[in-house]
Amino acid sequence: MEKEELLYEGKAKKLFKTDQVGVLWVEYLDQATALNGAKKDVVQGKGELNNQITSLIFEALKAEEIPSHFIEKISKTEQLVKSVEIIPLEVVVRNRAAGSFSKRLDIPEGKALPFPIVEFYYKEDRLDDPFINDDHVLALEIATEEEITVIKELARKVNQALIKLFQKAAITLIDFKIEVGRTPAGEILLADEISPDTCRLWDTATDSHLDKDIYRRDLGDLVPVYQEVLARLSK
Amino acid sequence: MEKEELLYEGKAKKLFKTDQVGVLWVEYLDQATALNGAKKDVVQGKGELNNQITSLIFEALKAEEIPSHFIEKISKTEQLVKSVEIIPLEVVVRNRAAGSFSKRLDIPEGKALPFPIVEFYYKEDRLDDPFINDDHVLALEIATEEEITVIKELARKVNQALIKLFQKAAITLIDFKIEVGRTPAGEILLADEISPDTCRLWDTATDSHLDKDIYRRDLGDLVPVYQEVLARLSK
Repeated sequence: MEKEELLYEGKAKKLFKTDQVGVLWVEYLDQATALNGAKKDVVQGKGELNNQITSLIFEALKAEEIPSHFIEKISKTEQLVKSVEIIPLEVVVRNRAAGSFSKRLDIPEGKALPFPIVEFYYKEDRLDDPFINDDHVLALEIATEEEITVIKELARKVNQALIKLFQKAAITLIDFKIEVGRTPAGEILLADEISPDTCRLWDTATDSHLDKDIYRRDLGDLVPVYQEVLARLSK
Repeated sequence: MEKEELLYEGKAKKLFKTDQVGVLWVEYLDQATALNGAKKDVVQGKGELNNQITSLIFEALKAEEIPSHFIEKISKTEQLVKSVEIIPLEVVVRNRAAGSFSKRLDIPEGKALPFPIVEFYYKEDRLDDPFINDDHVLALEIATEEEITVIKELARKVNQALIKLFQKAAITLIDFKIEVGRTPAGEILLADEISPDTCRLWDTATDSHLDKDIYRRDLGDLVPVYQEVLARLSK
């Protein structure tokens, strides 16, 4: 497999073409961002950690028969994925109240929700990724009604698998964000990454943050925390 | 029918008990508010206009077999309604982009939407009436899944009836907000009011505002505009 030209540079990853049709080369970067890019720092070692954690999680999800874009990890900071048309949605699943949800609805962080809540945000930096509902997804032609159903089912299935996986690591899954893509055949695949950048993870024993809130809220050094998550998941 | 004690004073109406169980006495006030009450003024004649317009509209909706709380207009500023348990939702239906929707999604005001979009806002002044989705409605126990379906169907049916009604008055219905209530028997009824305070109405010929945006956006005197709406609907 040969790495070819850069297709896209995101906040924490670079995406390259390869010499194989339908396969992309992902490079995880040593970069942390928050507040829609307003806060941004180089964090040595973060790319490696997120590539390893995401790869480990996507392997675990494959074992649960969750269809994803993940093919394989090819180096400490790189992986191969199937090329998909990314659907411009941030799909959030919440098991407990936290972050913007807690603020908007005045529900204390950590409060268990009666069932996992699914939310859609329109992935559009220019608009600050606004929260939208199913009617907006349809009206903006982001996805069809059938795709919305598939995406929500996928999100709930990923949630159940992640809860189990993190439970074994003594970590409580508060909430997480996924992205999904469409294959040329129209199949919906889990895409992007699943890491402490995209999940809220609390130590089950102490409720301490094991995720990007460390960086977002200036609570300390992110690297040892992500190392701890990787170590626990690797056991 | 005797008017008894004040039950509730809202931004533009007072609600009184009556000597008949299940019947409330509504008095429309000469008060205009916007920005969740941050802007507030006395507007002579507004109560009378909104009571007349709402009564006329609810009568028209009754003819379309839309179940509402409306019983009858009893004076220029007063009406009788069935007592219902108000569901704390602002149910918004949008035919064209405008207001917060235009801003959040950067869609020009007046642009026709591919279908009428329904949105729920959690009616909670303390939280500034946040936009929520169906999962939030369920998790916050605002309404059941069956009620959500009934509420959305009711909202779409009201929209079709209002479009027709306003069309005859050469008025384009851009969007509107309704509230709904639950009877002791569990029936969902259209409640609150439908007036230029709760609808965006544009003159079909000129696109000029015939609604509360006149007040919200300081575009002039609200009374002659509401009088124009009443006159056109009364023809």
